[in-house]
Amino acid sequence: MGPFEQLQALVAQDMDAVNTLIRTRMASEHAPRIPEVTAHLVEAGGKRLRPLLTLAAANMCGYQGAHHQLLAATVEFIHTATLLHDDVVDESDKRRGRPTANLLWDNKSSVLVGDYLFSRSFQLMVETGNMKALGILANASAVIAEGEVLQLSAAQDLSTTEEVYLQVVRGKTAALFAAACEVGAVIADAPKAHAQALFAYGDALGVAFQIVDDLLDFGGASATLGKNVGDDFRERKLTLPIILAVAKADTEERAFWQRTIEKGEQLEGDLAHALRLMEHHKTLADTRQRALNWAQMARKALAPLPESELKTVLSDLAGFVVSRVV
Amino acid sequence: MGPFEQLQALVAQDMDAVNTLIRTRMASEHAPRIPEVTAHLVEAGGKRLRPLLTLAAANMCGYQGAHHQLLAATVEFIHTATLLHDDVVDESDKRRGRPTANLLWDNKSSVLVGDYLFSRSFQLMVETGNMKALGILANASAVIAEGEVLQLSAAQDLSTTEEVYLQVVRGKTAALFAAACEVGAVIADAPKAHAQALFAYGDALGVAFQIVDDLLDFGGASATLGKNVGDDFRERKLTLPIILAVAKADTEERAFWQRTIEKGEQLEGDLAHALRLMEHHKTLADTRQRALNWAQMARKALAPLPESELKTVLSDLAGFVVSRVV
Repeated sequence: MGPFEQLQALVAQDMDAVNTLIRTRMASEHAPRIPEVTAHLVEAGGKRLRPLLTLAAANMCGYQGAHHQLLAATVEFIHTATLLHDDVVDESDKRRGRPTANLLWDNKSSVLVGDYLFSRSFQLMVETGNMKALGILANASAVIAEGEVLQLSAAQDLSTTEEVYLQVVRGKTAALFAAACEVGAVIADAPKAHAQALFAYGDALGVAFQIVDDLLDFGGASATLGKNVGDDFRERKLTLPIILAVAKADTEERAFWQRTIEKGEQLEGDLAHALRLMEHHKTLADTRQRALNWAQMARKALAPLPESELKTVLSDLAGFVVSRVV
Repeated sequence: MGPFEQLQALVAQDMDAVNTLIRTRMASEHAPRIPEVTAHLVEAGGKRLRPLLTLAAANMCGYQGAHHQLLAATVEFIHTATLLHDDVVDESDKRRGRPTANLLWDNKSSVLVGDYLFSRSFQLMVETGNMKALGILANASAVIAEGEVLQLSAAQDLSTTEEVYLQVVRGKTAALFAAACEVGAVIADAPKAHAQALFAYGDALGVAFQIVDDLLDFGGASATLGKNVGDDFRERKLTLPIILAVAKADTEERAFWQRTIEKGEQLEGDLAHALRLMEHHKTLADTRQRALNWAQMARKALAPLPESELKTVLSDLAGFVVSRVV
């Protein structure tokens, strides 16, 4: 059993309650379109990694109540709302192998049902009555939105640095991972050092997770042309493997990136050439190394927490997240 | 001086602080696109009626602190976020006589900056530390989103009843008016009866306000063809004047509404014909009467509150809101 399945097993009972919350609270009696769209999202599944982190954090900090379930559901609602809006922004037609809501219904429904889920997440966290947890999730929501907007203006801009990339990743992915872990500690009234440790763990895990995602889009560290490879390249998204390749580009290579990414003039064979350039400059291996470093930081961040089965599983999870590209 | 200017004058000092909050909290250091878009929104002005209601409600309930300013700014942020998303959903190109953000930038920016403003509103209210106010605003946000989604599915559907119309209006407009008033009472720790009275006032005022808006789209109670008249008709929006006309339609008239609204096949002269049908069935006058009734309900709702200058102004404001179509 891998670390992810171990995590699922350790919080299975709590997670059942969270899944019930997700199912019941996503419905709306007043607007039939809402349960249609949200049922599609719930059926699509997804790993529910973020709520698992909240439950694990609360339990390893000795929490005895049920409010961590509300916070876990909150985190998943925020995540789902951002997915709905992301698919509108990216004009995506597939998510997790299924048609997106914006394709099945329309952009309008995705925008408004996303807003509904944001509001519902807000209601869920108010039910905990924990102002500190609310503050953390409010801040995370703002950082997520900033990260998404920053990504918009950084997209297709070859001067985007690794630093800006990291800022985007911290916003769009790591902020919610970090908040998911931190609120678990906060609801358990854990010592500040433990809450900070869990925040740092979630942040590093989120960065590792997103870097791996961006690397997998090029087929992983040993890139091969295959199904679903190169979506980010075709959508002219400047992710780390390309940013590192642009930094090492000679004049001719720079012209290639300008044409394909900045101008978006892509021809047959361009993706294969992009992959060759990334192999040549070892940027896929470098990107993988960055992910491994962040996973290592995530593991180290857990040090202040007392030993427990859950701590070991979270530590292993950091390795597991990057194992997808080893 | 009309009631609106009187209201502005009575809370002018508080409103200065709210305007500063709006200016400073809409900016973001991390994503340059955000201050660009929000500056455009702030410059566009708007009446800021909702935050004025929050300030008035808090002051008339004897509130002495400064947290009502945070709540007033919160309410305006929620309103601005919904406007950004509405313009995307409606594919609008003008708002308050100026080009919309989705036209000046793009839909992506409007969706994401709207999300950012929602998150910022959330941070503002967390600063008050008042869980009850947070609950009210969380619920209002959910009702707003439900109202917007309901409007989506009710649009272009001739079977939409006056009841469904009212449900949409209560969601998309009245919920925030009601919450804006109620949180003012709640932050002042007013008796429950006073908070309920202010909620009921805001609800009725909001319904009156939206009915008047929908009536003005047809030029008011004595409709005349002119600039900006009939936008809702062209966009096939089923508002009260049309809903009442459909209810009274004979077979031929019904065919006209089916062609123009359900099928969206509109020809030269159709708007003039629609106006003639509404005049014939007196649905514009009936709509105006509904607005007057809601304004009367708003005034009556204030009864439990002790007499004060602000109470008189709020009462007069209800009349003023519908005076636009008298």
